[in-house]
Amino acid sequence: MLQPKRQLSDTERKRRDQVWDIMSAALAAVDPAQAIKQNVRLEGDSLQIGQRSYDLSGYERIFVAGGGKAGSPMIAAIEETLGQRITAGLVNVKHGYLPPEAADVQRVEIVEAGHPTPDEAGRRGAERMVEMLDQAPGGLTEKDLVICLISGGGSALMTLPQPTISLADVQALTGTLLRCGATINEINAVRKHISRIKGGQLARLIHPAQVVSLILSDVVGNPLDVIASGPTVPDTTTFAQAYGLLEKYHLLDKVPASIIEHLAAGVAGKIAETPKEGDPVFATVYNLIVGSNEIAARAALNRARESGFNTQLLSTYVEGEAREVAKVLAAVAKEMAQSGQPIPRPACLVVGGETTVTITGEGKGGRNQEIALAAALAIEGWEDVMVVTLATDGTDGPTDAAGGVATGETVAWARELGLDPEEYLANNDSYHFLKALGELIVTGPTNTNVNDLAFVFAF
Amino acid sequence: MLQPKRQLSDTERKRRDQVWDIMSAALAAVDPAQAIKQNVRLEGDSLQIGQRSYDLSGYERIFVAGGGKAGSPMIAAIEETLGQRITAGLVNVKHGYLPPEAADVQRVEIVEAGHPTPDEAGRRGAERMVEMLDQAPGGLTEKDLVICLISGGGSALMTLPQPTISLADVQALTGTLLRCGATINEINAVRKHISRIKGGQLARLIHPAQVVSLILSDVVGNPLDVIASGPTVPDTTTFAQAYGLLEKYHLLDKVPASIIEHLAAGVAGKIAETPKEGDPVFATVYNLIVGSNEIAARAALNRARESGFNTQLLSTYVEGEAREVAKVLAAVAKEMAQSGQPIPRPACLVVGGETTVTITGEGKGGRNQEIALAAALAIEGWEDVMVVTLATDGTDGPTDAAGGVATGETVAWARELGLDPEEYLANNDSYHFLKALGELIVTGPTNTNVNDLAFVFAF
Repeated sequence: MLQPKRQLSDTERKRRDQVWDIMSAALAAVDPAQAIKQNVRLEGDSLQIGQRSYDLSGYERIFVAGGGKAGSPMIAAIEETLGQRITAGLVNVKHGYLPPEAADVQRVEIVEAGHPTPDEAGRRGAERMVEMLDQAPGGLTEKDLVICLISGGGSALMTLPQPTISLADVQALTGTLLRCGATINEINAVRKHISRIKGGQLARLIHPAQVVSLILSDVVGNPLDVIASGPTVPDTTTFAQAYGLLEKYHLLDKVPASIIEHLAAGVAGKIAETPKEGDPVFATVYNLIVGSNEIAARAALNRARESGFNTQLLSTYVEGEAREVAKVLAAVAKEMAQSGQPIPRPACLVVGGETTVTITGEGKGGRNQEIALAAALAIEGWEDVMVVTLATDGTDGPTDAAGGVATGETVAWARELGLDPEEYLANNDSYHFLKALGELIVTGPTNTNVNDLAFVFAF
Repeated sequence: MLQPKRQLSDTERKRRDQVWDIMSAALAAVDPAQAIKQNVRLEGDSLQIGQRSYDLSGYERIFVAGGGKAGSPMIAAIEETLGQRITAGLVNVKHGYLPPEAADVQRVEIVEAGHPTPDEAGRRGAERMVEMLDQAPGGLTEKDLVICLISGGGSALMTLPQPTISLADVQALTGTLLRCGATINEINAVRKHISRIKGGQLARLIHPAQVVSLILSDVVGNPLDVIASGPTVPDTTTFAQAYGLLEKYHLLDKVPASIIEHLAAGVAGKIAETPKEGDPVFATVYNLIVGSNEIAARAALNRARESGFNTQLLSTYVEGEAREVAKVLAAVAKEMAQSGQPIPRPACLVVGGETTVTITGEGKGGRNQEIALAAALAIEGWEDVMVVTLATDGTDGPTDAAGGVATGETVAWARELGLDPEEYLANNDSYHFLKALGELIVTGPTNTNVNDLAFVFAF
């Protein structure tokens, strides 16, 4: 419930309730268990997954594998659907990410692993997952079905380096790459080429069994090869690129020798490349996004429409500096209020993505809260407009809030209380600003993550 | 014409031509002469201005006054319409802003004045304009009509301080206020209260004659009291606020004594306040925006629609850091390309406003060119999308370009030529980047200014 620390008129109260309802619909749609149940249905022997149908009478075994922070509820949901039909399973989740329903999971082993820094528990879990598949009695055949549960954090949680490379080497590499200024895509090219799982290699390992990957996307734009480093997705990078990047950033003498040697062997053709687009291993793979920013946004739009709003999705690709993105959202709010464009009142425009904050102050906050504070400044004095922000994982930056609410009255109200909004913004202290007004959005942990949503209202 | 320095396919050629055509329609709609002609029509004795009608047989005299950078073509257009019916007129324009048609102007005196720093020529012109009105034989009456031509730059060009304050004092004040960190609204509160024209005072001077102000807006959101400091618009600020600001910024001993004394006298009630909302002087005033960002945007949207595009106006209020706003525009381009939202292909989304650039590099560019460069990076590799930017005055930053073009191919093409887009962006060198590719938009000076437009296409 949204409960600012001031008296609300009935109209304002109703608006807050509508906003909360719309946000709740968005979160419900990407709840990991719901995301599985919406996309996986069993009727008799017919397993309906997304647009495809699998006749289970044609399969001898069903395995469950994968990793990610949303793993536990995804496992619970898949077990609820398939129950004893599951032969065996192993999924890596983050330490402590064991909701109550995990206790009921019987067929799939849940391994707690390190995130964001990979640890030995995760490596060992990933290794046992590979063994479960690789050493399945008689080997995997076309008569086997492997369901992979993939969600954010899967890349770290399923860290399984090539046998000649230690976990410590991987950790050293990651630190070096992060410091050298390489882009995340460049870092991933190297990571994929020292892993036994990433970059489509899990799919190759499973082939010729059927693979169904159920993916909860935590990456803006849902690039399948990036989410959890794309274990069942064609890789777009090569050994040559990975080695070239270490050269480009002058890291050949800074990265562990085991890694350099492995990459060099790959470049020399002594080790198989990661599988690429068109590789036959992908003929038996079905990658299905079951939860994403767009799915959350659509659910919000549907609920808003049911509540009588005119609705529009502006984009699910929004990135950029939070306080500047806020100005654009504010600009749209003003136009809707002023001219009824791009959509007439009552209007609810939904924007998805994930912004960043360049921290220069010493306050507390997160990208979503900073958007709310900056938007409040930009819509100061405008009537009947609101900007609401939401981190779908319920945790915006290092805070217990998911986002915040800004209206045309926010700034005047803050000043009455003696708060200087510009000062809070300059100090990156959106959390304390919004908290003082009771305008934080607090959902608690949601067990999901499909990036952020922002809602622009003109009532 | 858009003529990048590479071979275009027929499809690409056609798209460039459409884009140029759409931009041209936007500029034509806010051409100062066109803006006047669209809104001022004479049929017999009936003068139609916007939604109002003035029966000229009921008026004895018509005066023309005002100031702004677009003054000359506005004067020429009004003379073309009213000709010998104009009794007298005087309008201040910027030094050198005398297009060929100004030579044909006969009834209205054109005074060249200083901008952005006010000069004695402008002060003297404004003084003579006031005298023309104030000392009209028999005084102005209800039987007189005064047409004011207001456009960007009018505030500096019509600088006429109160008699006890010198032009040098005003210049000293402006410099001090700009350095102290005061907002533009704060600066304007002070300026209005030492002027004889600003903040509705021209309207009071003209009362009880009829006033029609034809306004070309160069301020985002068209706040009438801000454009040219609102000479015929109710003021929202007071002597007390103006004086308070000097106190707030500790400027009472830094600002010329003549100004402090004048403001103090105002606070003490010894000088009349600027006229406020509800003041009877505004009963005879009609302020009409004849050119604005929205009018330009609408013209662009209409032309795009005629060309077969699905269209939408996102906002005319966009402000913020250019390279961050670019990311949001890119995000919308991606969504349109990917999901057909907010509008399906072929899509033309129009965005208006004026961004800023925080300069950290030593290159050459402008806010619109920087948007194009940053957008190119954000849409790299995307097919059939384009972001185009345009400063409607034809001059983006200190360059001879008005904006630039970015497509999904721009970055790859630049890299082929050995240009590093990130480096150019880091150096604020968008001009040289776009110039090397032939992707600058060059319109030449347009004699108008209604801020900037950006166009987001998904073909």
